[in-house]
Amino acid sequence: MNRRSFIKRAGAAGTGAAASVALAAPALAQSQPEVTWQLSSGYPKLLDTIYGASETFADTVRELTDGKFDIKVFPAGEIVDTSDGLDAVQEGKIEIASTASNYFWEKDPAFAFGTGVPFGLNQRMMNSWLYEGGGLELLNGFYKKFNIIGFPSGNTGAQMGGWFRREINSLDDLQGLKFRIGGFGGTIIEKIGVQPVDLPPERIYGALENGTIDAAEFVGPYDDDRLGLNRVAKYYYYPGWWEGGVTLMNLVNLDKWNALPKSYQAAIRSASAQANATMIARYDSLNPPTLRQLVQFGTVLRPYSHDIMLACFNAAEETYKELASDNADFKALLDSYMSYRRDAYLWFQLSEYAQDAFLMLQQRAGRL
Amino acid sequence: MNRRSFIKRAGAAGTGAAASVALAAPALAQSQPEVTWQLSSGYPKLLDTIYGASETFADTVRELTDGKFDIKVFPAGEIVDTSDGLDAVQEGKIEIASTASNYFWEKDPAFAFGTGVPFGLNQRMMNSWLYEGGGLELLNGFYKKFNIIGFPSGNTGAQMGGWFRREINSLDDLQGLKFRIGGFGGTIIEKIGVQPVDLPPERIYGALENGTIDAAEFVGPYDDDRLGLNRVAKYYYYPGWWEGGVTLMNLVNLDKWNALPKSYQAAIRSASAQANATMIARYDSLNPPTLRQLVQFGTVLRPYSHDIMLACFNAAEETYKELASDNADFKALLDSYMSYRRDAYLWFQLSEYAQDAFLMLQQRAGRL
Repeated sequence: MNRRSFIKRAGAAGTGAAASVALAAPALAQSQPEVTWQLSSGYPKLLDTIYGASETFADTVRELTDGKFDIKVFPAGEIVDTSDGLDAVQEGKIEIASTASNYFWEKDPAFAFGTGVPFGLNQRMMNSWLYEGGGLELLNGFYKKFNIIGFPSGNTGAQMGGWFRREINSLDDLQGLKFRIGGFGGTIIEKIGVQPVDLPPERIYGALENGTIDAAEFVGPYDDDRLGLNRVAKYYYYPGWWEGGVTLMNLVNLDKWNALPKSYQAAIRSASAQANATMIARYDSLNPPTLRQLVQFGTVLRPYSHDIMLACFNAAEETYKELASDNADFKALLDSYMSYRRDAYLWFQLSEYAQDAFLMLQQRAGRL
Repeated sequence: MNRRSFIKRAGAAGTGAAASVALAAPALAQSQPEVTWQLSSGYPKLLDTIYGASETFADTVRELTDGKFDIKVFPAGEIVDTSDGLDAVQEGKIEIASTASNYFWEKDPAFAFGTGVPFGLNQRMMNSWLYEGGGLELLNGFYKKFNIIGFPSGNTGAQMGGWFRREINSLDDLQGLKFRIGGFGGTIIEKIGVQPVDLPPERIYGALENGTIDAAEFVGPYDDDRLGLNRVAKYYYYPGWWEGGVTLMNLVNLDKWNALPKSYQAAIRSASAQANATMIARYDSLNPPTLRQLVQFGTVLRPYSHDIMLACFNAAEETYKELASDNADFKALLDSYMSYRRDAYLWFQLSEYAQDAFLMLQQRAGRL
């Protein structure tokens, strides 16, 4: 449908009507035109957490505009494949891709900062950087090159570190291991000897079952359980240091955005913020009971050793330096993001950490 | 101003206009009436964090409604005192009090759960409980008795534990100490021998300077610095276990809420959620640099000892049991909130804690 002609028609009709009656009707008609957009999620319907957040977002926009601004939501692959989301928005084939910005890091590694980078900001810090630390402004300066404007629309929190068929006690155990891991994290873990494999969610189970891969990470207890990963691997490692506060983004075509009435722009902004707040709330509500269930049915929880964590941290820092050396966008985003990380991990050592650590001790002692 | 007659007038005029032209104008006119509300903040303008969030909220509502729904924001005391906020909303003198629900705990201790209770949920857990764990539904069942509906509209995160003129190393050091502390926390800390004192923000500095009180807590580095507390006390303790994830609420008159068009209700809901997401982002952005500055100018940071924390934790648990024994609302909210706390502090021990703790170690080692 041609949205621009719709707006023009509505505006013209309103003006005509206003001339004949003494009412503020023309402004109202102009400000609430009927607009239909298409949003393609980067995720299948099976993931009612991430895909579901896009539906909630679209519902909210409809509520805010009395149904006048109608965003149709499609699962990955139905009208646009996950990997084509950016191009589809850039070219105006769809108006919104609701996805992880870092899926497009091979086009430009700076896209990684829309999601967060390995050993980076946690969920709360990421929001702070985006909303109040100049992060979103910087990011949108970069997205503009692709005719896109982005709005944070969800967060998974710190993800788990993946499912392994055998225990991983040292760096040696990781050598040559075929590990299904999302895009940008794979380039880093490759430096310590792991063989990263890229697979869409629906193919992980089979590959792990038939031994094509040795290990796989996806999100956390709730989503991983839906993929059935616990049935083909016993050891569940943490943390997923490559995805410590994964942000989802509504990537919006900039021309279409600029053509919207101000109140519809506000609806996208607020509904995205609301989706951002409620997606993490939903994960934090669904993950604990699923975790209990997984453990009850035999899943064994294991932390990555400090040696492994440190080697990966060093590999990440090295990667950032390399990428920043010949990419000005990456460097500007890295500098801003990392200076935020430095301060945030100082501040959080005080009340947040002290209160959480004390209550975790009480939890372990069975006093909660 | 009489809002109801405004809605009626707008509706009637719209219908008349529609009859004379073939346009969807009447529905538009009815759905976007001009409405003016009054919001009283529980805080002075000086606190640009908390007070500022109410202004942001009202701005967002105006943007979402093309300026038709105009919420006027007043600082504490200008039209309603902080302590009268609940009554003023209940009686319809104002439409919204943007405040801490626990200020009204003496009316009924169940009000404490709208803010969070000592040794309770942190910011993220609190949102999860409210939005996805049935917390807000339960709370609104209780608020209904006061003709009120509540929307989370901000969070300060875990607050600091207060400013002391001398070091507090043991429970003995706390005996008889006159401590300015907010409402509900005071009843608990009294059990371990502290003498709680209630003072409005603007009087804390003077009382601490002239020795009327020995110690005082307010919020965290940014707000406390604005009150100048570092100039009259040297030791800055953490965590503020009585305020581990303080939620602010937009408490709305239920009759006025029910009379709103659906899209204006959606505007309040979304703008509140957006304010909730951005207030904590703002605190997390402002606190770290202020903290650095405070330490540079002589403030000494001290954690409460484990003994003190444990004694306070036990006093809190005892208080909850007492209050739940003869208050069904308090008991229902306590059971829901505490079962959430149990699961949340288990889940957060995995990826969130492991990732944060590792990066805090790197921060201390100067590697961030």
